[in-house]
This record gives sequence, structure tokens and C-alpha cells, in this order.
Amino acid sequence: LRIAELSRASGVSIDTIKYYLREGLLTPGIATAQNQATYSEGHVRRLRLIRALTEIGRLSLKTVRDVLNALDDERLPVHRLLGMALYASEGEVPDDDASDEMLSAQAEVDRFLVGMGWQVSAKAPSRRRLAQTLVTLRRLGRPADAQIFRRYARLADRLAAWEVGEISGATSRAEVLEDAVVGSLVFGEALMALRRLAQEHHSTIRRPRGPSAPARSDDPAIRRQGK
Amino acid sequence: LRIAELSRASGVSIDTIKYYLREGLLTPGIATAQNQATYSEGHVRRLRLIRALTEIGRLSLKTVRDVLNALDDERLPVHRLLGMALYASEGEVPDDDASDEMLSAQAEVDRFLVGMGWQVSAKAPSRRRLAQTLVTLRRLGRPADAQIFRRYARLADRLAAWEVGEISGATSRAEVLEDAVVGSLVFGEALMALRRLAQEHHSTIRRPRGPSAPARSDDPAIRRQGK
Repeated sequence: LRIAELSRASGVSIDTIKYYLREGLLTPGIATAQNQATYSEGHVRRLRLIRALTEIGRLSLKTVRDVLNALDDERLPVHRLLGMALYASEGEVPDDDASDEMLSAQAEVDRFLVGMGWQVSAKAPSRRRLAQTLVTLRRLGRPADAQIFRRYARLADRLAAWEVGEISGATSRAEVLEDAVVGSLVFGEALMALRRLAQEHHSTIRRPRGPSAPARSDDPAIRRQGK
Repeated sequence: LRIAELSRASGVSIDTIKYYLREGLLTPGIATAQNQATYSEGHVRRLRLIRALTEIGRLSLKTVRDVLNALDDERLPVHRLLGMALYASEGEVPDDDASDEMLSAQAEVDRFLVGMGWQVSAKAPSRRRLAQTLVTLRRLGRPADAQIFRRYARLADRLAAWEVGEISGATSRAEVLEDAVVGSLVFGEALMALRRLAQEHHSTIRRPRGPSAPARSDDPAIRRQGK
């Protein structure tokens, strides 16, 4: 493949490809003439992976480089590789909140995960995220302990068991990595959108018909609200 | 309640309370003396709701005002009220993408939702979000049609039926509104965090023991990667 064909096949512009070559994210093609080189299917796949990491995972180029180095280091267990990419793609979890309520929520989340029997790194950023939701609920005046997550956790457990099983069909480390990033993030987005749509559906079909909630959907009050 | 007590009970600073009073988001207390007023439990609840809408729903003060007006207009059906608050809290879904692939993805999503039997407004922003994930998958070279969402949709359907049922226990319009915003957004966050933790767990317990993925978790390569 010439560079223009590589660009078409990968959906990455020629300028960006040249930038990745300069930055060492992509190995050089085989030189065929001065200022000309030919590229392989491997280059197409690597570019697609870089796109997944940057566009979907929103990883910085520095992190992409670390992940690609880890990918090429066959001694690194694949679940460590996934951890690197997925932890980075979760974005910053602010850790400046060392208030008593946050520390106590984190301890509760840790105990909750032990209770679920989940093997999760102590460094997993989602531990803090979950603790934050607990703190948020309490600050809003809702008495809540980590057990309120139980139903969601059981559902997440079944879903993740299936999702991880799907990825296990991938044959190379690069494929596993791409599937995990796309699966976790893109299907995470899709799940959130579907949950909101399903909430709207169930709230519509259940709508109470009391005096404060007329069932007519063409209620003039709606138009009056300018909505 | 004096204003200082109202501030303690609601977790909202006195300055912010004064600002809400000036902006008409909060009805004035009963004047007891010059520059002094007394507030009720109703004020505490209204402030808690405003906090939920601004901090969790991230609604602008203008939108909060619209939602509160709608809340107080008893003729407005409660599911319309929820639509206003939840659509606004989803944030902007860019709608400048009128490419053929986006339009075709939107049509597929619309057909998919009909197939699910879901009653969802044509204006629901999540329709576009779901279509975007389909476009993203295709741009990454994954042949995908809306049917790949089927499993997630069935799961979302069961989850939402339960969640909406929980909210139906709320007794006032304000409670329904607060429960819906908190439930949809805070528990949405929690679900995403739990899914990531469960994915890590299942990927850890399933980790292949092939040559490229040694099972030793203290692999020196990890330290060499600086992670």
C-alpha cells in the first residue's frame, strides 16, 4: 500500500500518518524509492487501533505510546495491558477529596467489592467513582450504604461475564486490546442511551392518571411551557 | 428556620440561598423583622431539589427555573416534567452531523426502538446518541447494525422497569422529579463504575495462560513499563 491507500483504508489523514511515523507510533514502511514507501495490512490495523485509543478511549498520545509499547512487549500479561488502556480511558478521578465521608465511603466500597467476590486492583479508578456516588447520595440527604448498589452490581456481573467472553474470541493481543476499549467505552455509551430510552418508555406506560398528571399527551400546558 | 439554619439543613451556602431568592428560584420566607425571615421545611426540600438539578443534573439556572415552573404547574403531566429535566441533563448531543451514514444510523435506531416496542419521544436525545455509537463502530471498520444492541436493550428494559417502579413510590411531583434525576444520573454513574469493575474481575479470572500472557502478576515487565 502507498501512503494514500493506507490513509483511505484506515480513515486516518496522510498528515496524521506522517505525524505518527515521526512520533514512532507507527513503524516505517519499506522504502521503495526516495520519499516513497510501501505499507502493509499490519499498518492499517495499527492505525485503526490508534484511532480507537485516541477517539474512543480519548487517550493522550503519550498514553497511546505507553500502551503500544506494552502491546509489543509480549511478556506483559494481557490483562495488565487492558488495565493500562482502560484505567487511562476512564479519565481523571479527582483524588483531592480526603474528607472523612469520602474515606468512609471508599472503605465501604472496598468491603462491598470483597462481598461481591470481585478480584479488582486496589488502584482501579472506578472504586473512587463508586465511592463518590455514595457521597453524592448522602450529601443530597439520602441515607445510603453500599448495599444499594447490590442490584446494579449483580446485573453488571452478568453483563461483564458475557462481554469478556465475547472478547476472548479475539486472536491477537492487539485485537483483544481494541475489542476491550471499544467494547467497554462504545457499548457503555450505548447501554446508557438505551437505559434512558427504556426509562422514558416505562415512565410513559406507567404514568399515573391522578389529577396532577392528566394522561392526555397533547395537554396545552406543554405548549405553554414552550417545550 | 432562620437563613443560617436553612443553610445548614440544605447544605447550600447563605450567599447562594440569597442569590436563589433574588432570582426567584426560592419563594421568600416569612418576614419576622427587618432583614430577617423564617423558612420552612418546604424551603429545605426545594433547595435540595435545586442542588440535585444543578450538581447532579448539571442543569443551567435558566433550565432549573423552567423545570421549577413546570413542577409548580400542576396541569403539566409528570412524565413531561421528567422529560424536560432528563433531556436537559443529558447535555448537548451535537446535531450538526447530517452525513448519509448518520442519517441512515438514525433511521436504523428508530426502527430498532419500534421493534423493541418502546414508546419514546421522537425528540429524545438518546436516539441520536445511540445512532452515534453505531456510526463510531462502522468508522472503526466494524460491520454493525442496530441488532448488536439487542442484548443491551433487553437488559436496559428490565432494569428501567424496576427503576421506574421504585420511583413510583414517591408521593409528590417534586419527589418524583428528584428521584428521577438522582436515579437516572447517580445510579447511571454507579452502574458504569460497577460494569468496569466487573469487567476487570472477569478479565482477571479468565486470563489466558498462553506464552504471551504469563499468569504471574508480579511480572517484572510491568515495573519496566513504569506502570
